[in-house]
Amino acid sequence: MGGDNAPQSVVDGADIALTKFPDLRFLFFGDEAQLTPLLKKAKRLHGHYELVHTTDVVRSEDRPSAALRQGKNSSMRLAIDAVAQGKASGVVSAGNTGAFMAMSKLVFKTLPGIDRPAIAGEMPTHKHDILMLDLGANVACDADVLYQFAVIGDAFARQVLGLRKPTIGLLNIGSEDMKGHEEIQQAAQKLKENTLGLNYIGYVEGTDILQGKADVVVADGFTGNVALKTVEGTARFFASQMKATMRSSFWGRAAYVLARPAFAKLKKRLDARRYNGAMFLGLNGVAVKSHGGADGYAFYHAIREAHDMITCGVNERIIKEMATLANQQNQEEDRSAGTLEAVL
Amino acid sequence: MGGDNAPQSVVDGADIALTKFPDLRFLFFGDEAQLTPLLKKAKRLHGHYELVHTTDVVRSEDRPSAALRQGKNSSMRLAIDAVAQGKASGVVSAGNTGAFMAMSKLVFKTLPGIDRPAIAGEMPTHKHDILMLDLGANVACDADVLYQFAVIGDAFARQVLGLRKPTIGLLNIGSEDMKGHEEIQQAAQKLKENTLGLNYIGYVEGTDILQGKADVVVADGFTGNVALKTVEGTARFFASQMKATMRSSFWGRAAYVLARPAFAKLKKRLDARRYNGAMFLGLNGVAVKSHGGADGYAFYHAIREAHDMITCGVNERIIKEMATLANQQNQEEDRSAGTLEAVL
Repeated sequence: MGGDNAPQSVVDGADIALTKFPDLRFLFFGDEAQLTPLLKKAKRLHGHYELVHTTDVVRSEDRPSAALRQGKNSSMRLAIDAVAQGKASGVVSAGNTGAFMAMSKLVFKTLPGIDRPAIAGEMPTHKHDILMLDLGANVACDADVLYQFAVIGDAFARQVLGLRKPTIGLLNIGSEDMKGHEEIQQAAQKLKENTLGLNYIGYVEGTDILQGKADVVVADGFTGNVALKTVEGTARFFASQMKATMRSSFWGRAAYVLARPAFAKLKKRLDARRYNGAMFLGLNGVAVKSHGGADGYAFYHAIREAHDMITCGVNERIIKEMATLANQQNQEEDRSAGTLEAVL
Repeated sequence: MGGDNAPQSVVDGADIALTKFPDLRFLFFGDEAQLTPLLKKAKRLHGHYELVHTTDVVRSEDRPSAALRQGKNSSMRLAIDAVAQGKASGVVSAGNTGAFMAMSKLVFKTLPGIDRPAIAGEMPTHKHDILMLDLGANVACDADVLYQFAVIGDAFARQVLGLRKPTIGLLNIGSEDMKGHEEIQQAAQKLKENTLGLNYIGYVEGTDILQGKADVVVADGFTGNVALKTVEGTARFFASQMKATMRSSFWGRAAYVLARPAFAKLKKRLDARRYNGAMFLGLNGVAVKSHGGADGYAFYHAIREAHDMITCGVNERIIKEMATLANQQNQEEDRSAGTLEAVL
């Protein structure tokens, strides 16, 4: 029920998703009165869904803490609970981001060894799509959390983006060791010394993000959010400047007509809707946040992200990596303890 | 002597600047052997400059602390000293940013009431150019420093950009009061309650920067630097994607030929060289940092920024505003003291 175009966009998104992944089955949580007529019209979905009725909703203006207390029968909470109960493999919502994250955290908990979940998103580059995280779940992050984000991002890049040895960069304001704040310098040290085989390539800057210098760009949630929204704003600015410039002259307008197929291709490739779907990574459950303004096509892409996370086993990979890390640390401690005993 | 194309770009920049501001006079600091032949060729500059010979330079890889200790006869330091001694009204350099900032801070000191200088830059928007600061001088900033940046930015926007009541926004990850970290929330509170007539409009996001929502975008140096470089990287990405797309088809190539004048106009308007020149604001002296890769035209724009700061009286305005603030605080204290006495 969340988002500007719900529940229509949700039903439309599921409908499109079914054409790509014919085995999908959906649980729709929301108001029967609104959903039933929409679902009736979506013939392709028939036999592929169940409707769970609730009239409670989390509103976009609700504080996460209020949603946690009062939203126990909301469509959002029931959908999350369904994943925890094994009735669904993942949850997708276009509703209140803060509430969705708070509820997902409470119900799913983080994976073993992970202190905090991150919000992650794919972005286009000259080469292939990359992953950036955290996009806003954690305003400040210490070195351990940034290191965990690198492990999480690496797992996603391997399993979903299909990269064999994804490069990992820390978003900073220069490439030299002394740049940035203490947390990022400590995280860099941990990543340099990492024993998990992470392909850490050092600091990356704002200019490097869309050049694809790193396959996984790691940042605290404040910086990552500013960077993501600055990309969006700059893209919008250039698209509208380009349009206005071409419209301002006769030859420009003529060129626009000629180049329309080329522009259409570019627009399709860089369509923001294709990048809809922010993954909550590091949780013991699959949750994907759709943009609130998503239409059916955009919502489909959020569903696709959830589908990919589930079928590609992102969380399984994170669990394995964190277990390896814990083992290494235990052995390290055993060794130190052994040395200590020997000394004693 | 600093930057990739020095000293040629510096001489070229001065030469262009003289066509725009015929009263300008230059002091060139650097190696006679390299500069004399270049200056001889630049006929227009004859009678408009003096050359101060030194072979010492700050290198791009020097640490600021080392440059401070060992660079006392460097071209950079001598140029800064000339401003402090009243021989020049401002200094422009394309050299090592960290060293330039450290030396400027040491020699000029900050203006009364200003704790830290900021690096500021102009950016294009749909409406008019805006100012963003800090772009990297201070990795972390407390609420007082962010508040001072707002005063500084307001002064620049009024005096140089010619805006009557410039709008001021704090760069954050959402528009609600509770968003972001403590420092930014406290700065917002101070700006809301400000008694200087600052036109504070609240938080702005990455998407808002180039939309021109605020005339002055205030951020800590880490966030500002990431945002600036993300704008640059995104612009570069879209320009190259656009080019590749149009080249990929016959009609696209035809359209490109037709639209060339329109593209040229856009390129000129958004030419990164026009936005060259990062001002060190809040210092008791005018210092402008040119991009290291600047050519003559770009370097001219850095000179223009210094010229504008000097002739428009930016520092005079900051001094006046900070004096007003100090007065208000004194009166406030007097009043509290008075109340206290009355109570006693």
